Amino acid sequence: MEIIDEKEWLACCGSSEFAKQMAMASPFASLDLAVAAARDIWFNKVNVNGWLQAFSAHPQIGQSHISSSAPSSPSAQWSKVEQSTALATATTFSLEELHKWNAQYREKFGFIFLICASGRSTDEILAELKKRYANRPIVEFEIAAQEQMKVTELRIAKLFSTKTKAASPTVS
Amino acid sequence: MEIIDEKEWLACCGSSEFAKQMAMASPFASLDLAVAAARDIWFNKVNVNGWLQAFSAHPQIGQSHISSSAPSSPSAQWSKVEQSTALATATTFSLEELHKWNAQYREKFGFIFLICASGRSTDEILAELKKRYANRPIVEFEIAAQEQMKVTELRIAKLFSTKTKAASPTVS
Repeated sequence: MEIIDEKEWLACCGSSEFAKQMAMASPFASLDLAVAAARDIWFNKVNVNGWLQAFSAHPQIGQSHISSSAPSSPSAQWSKVEQSTALATATTFSLEELHKWNAQYREKFGFIFLICASGRSTDEILAELKKRYANRPIVEFEIAAQEQMKVTELRIAKLFSTKTKAASPTVS
Repeated sequence: MEIIDEKEWLACCGSSEFAKQMAMASPFASLDLAVAAARDIWFNKVNVNGWLQAFSAHPQIGQSHISSSAPSSPSAQWSKVEQSTALATATTFSLEELHKWNAQYREKFGFIFLICASGRSTDEILAELKKRYANRPIVEFEIAAQEQMKVTELRIAKLFSTKTKAASPTVS
């Protein structure tokens, strides 16, 4: 049973309502139970303002290194690792293209382009951005929320794995 | 062909993006064409922030008489007329009940309960509110946007009818 506090939940998903409700539902006997609770809270309890709040906590994709708010926060560090494949495969051209499309996306939808970037190349991310750009705003809003949940699940798993390691008994 | 300016469109639907785009698409040769453009702009162009902005321009149902922002604006006057059936059929008990459920709804969803109230009694509105309260936030967000569009269509029709009357040639 892992003790995870509200601040740690907030690093998994930047909605304060999500973090509050996860802290209230804690502790969880397993990672699976924590993820199930997170999914229920995120999709059924957190409202559209909470979704927007969580979205705004992310650095823009391709820009994790200049995250302005709290570059050394766990959330910012996680973003950096999650985007590492994208950054490793980026060329100056593809980054400029990504930057341009990110701006257009934000202009249309009112929030940044969100994608679970783990293991994806810049070209894959750019192709997905261009495809999703055609969506109706409300449709894209729900897709972004699903991507946010994927990111949250990865982060919860990391959190559990860190805690489990820390809690392992020393062989004596 | 009716000349309707941005401010008048804003009274039909309180999203500034909606009003701007309707003014740009004006004038319209008929009411039907105006409504078709309004539907396209509202559902496909205005983003979720614009939806929230439009929702926040409404007085809470059952409270149109104490609309604080601009009680003499066309929008506030229209709300009053649209809610006239509800207010005429309201008892102190049903108004209190409505007030309580409105607060609960707002707490859950982060925006006020929106319904095209024209011709509906307080009891009908209350029953609908209780039913919709069970929805997931994103589902309810889209329903609210559909209700907003019904209100907008009624208001555009009123606007066209006022303009047409004003523009009728005097028989001489």
